[in-house]
Amino acid sequence: MNLILFAQGELKDEVLSLEGERAAHIAGVLRAAVGDRLRVGQIDGPLGTARVRRVSDVLVELDELELGETPPEQPIDLLLALPRPKVLARLLSPIAQLGVRRIYLSGAWKVERFYFDAHVLAPEAMRVHLLEGLAQVKDTRVPEVSIHRSLTFLVRDELNALLPPETERLVCDPRAALLEQTPRVAKHTLLAFGPEGGFTEREDRLFAEHAFVPVGLGERTLRSDVAVLAALARAHAR
Amino acid sequence: MNLILFAQGELKDEVLSLEGERAAHIAGVLRAAVGDRLRVGQIDGPLGTARVRRVSDVLVELDELELGETPPEQPIDLLLALPRPKVLARLLSPIAQLGVRRIYLSGAWKVERFYFDAHVLAPEAMRVHLLEGLAQVKDTRVPEVSIHRSLTFLVRDELNALLPPETERLVCDPRAALLEQTPRVAKHTLLAFGPEGGFTEREDRLFAEHAFVPVGLGERTLRSDVAVLAALARAHAR
Repeated sequence: MNLILFAQGELKDEVLSLEGERAAHIAGVLRAAVGDRLRVGQIDGPLGTARVRRVSDVLVELDELELGETPPEQPIDLLLALPRPKVLARLLSPIAQLGVRRIYLSGAWKVERFYFDAHVLAPEAMRVHLLEGLAQVKDTRVPEVSIHRSLTFLVRDELNALLPPETERLVCDPRAALLEQTPRVAKHTLLAFGPEGGFTEREDRLFAEHAFVPVGLGERTLRSDVAVLAALARAHAR
Repeated sequence: MNLILFAQGELKDEVLSLEGERAAHIAGVLRAAVGDRLRVGQIDGPLGTARVRRVSDVLVELDELELGETPPEQPIDLLLALPRPKVLARLLSPIAQLGVRRIYLSGAWKVERFYFDAHVLAPEAMRVHLLEGLAQVKDTRVPEVSIHRSLTFLVRDELNALLPPETERLVCDPRAALLEQTPRVAKHTLLAFGPEGGFTEREDRLFAEHAFVPVGLGERTLRSDVAVLAALARAHAR
């Protein structure tokens, strides 16, 4: 936890009262003492520092908040054919660390329908993982996550309204030219990622009809969680 | 498991007898029948196919092996300040998937000494993870792993003999220019990666004195396992 994240609503009379994990971290790991200043971030808001006013393992109070800049919006949206729940749970913090503006979790022909019933898809469950990733990299902007049972409906009818105005659309495809060989044509990128076993031909056509450019990641068929992180790291570096 | 890996010694009278996990995979996941041909790879040797001669959950026999090319050697060596055992265990398969020729696990000022006693450092324990990664990406070359308690001794006295003749040396450093902005000056790359908390100034000097060029990965301080995978993916794409 390189940053103590808090929600605006937690600030009362200019004092931030923290319990649970954050209090335990401040007391046990940071070993903060009264008067120390800690790095804090208001969720979806500015970064800053605050003064320790009171500290124990179960309750920490911070005051004298000094807030500055809000971190910039990330230049990538990620469309993921819904991975199996365990994989999704493992991916959310690393995805938040690498940085995305928004995550679209979508159905696809090869996505098992019961994945949509998984506990990890509950907004509060996803949020825990996302906040953990943000605290690691000192970011405050929580990626928005939306769930779409129908890939066709998402791509055909919903995406235009959900993406920033100028967005290039890429879809990972093992047969395509490497991501790095694909010229970047817009500031914002949507990167789409298939399920284990890939998208079907029909889905490939859907993407092609909606201006997605296929991009490759190389010859090695990475396990899907590794592939998503590698693709995201490379898309950021491109 | 996209490839059934076997050791040369397992081939007897041109028949490959497999038990345990591989037999269960062939019978239960691939649902192979007698006469089917499966993709096989001889560890550190050629890729090919073999015919199912007999199949049950506990014993599979393959024969009529047809072996072809051995996959190329990977162009990257990875020097890792020894991560905590849990993290190392989680990293080995993804590292093998992304592809490295050799892994140097090294001590460093901020590496806890007791990490060196961890079970995961046993060669047979590491091999299980590495083979799993190779089977995923259809490679047969097991990265060599060596353990070095002293970073100084490794960098000063051992590396020259262990690296391929023309190797550029990079060390990840959050303050440095991005990896992608660093021109590639040799076919083979050694990428060095610090412990949580980074290398010390003295270690930085050791690297500088031995021709390591510092390279950055961007402003976000990724968790060390995510950082290693992101760096490796980006080094391969560079």
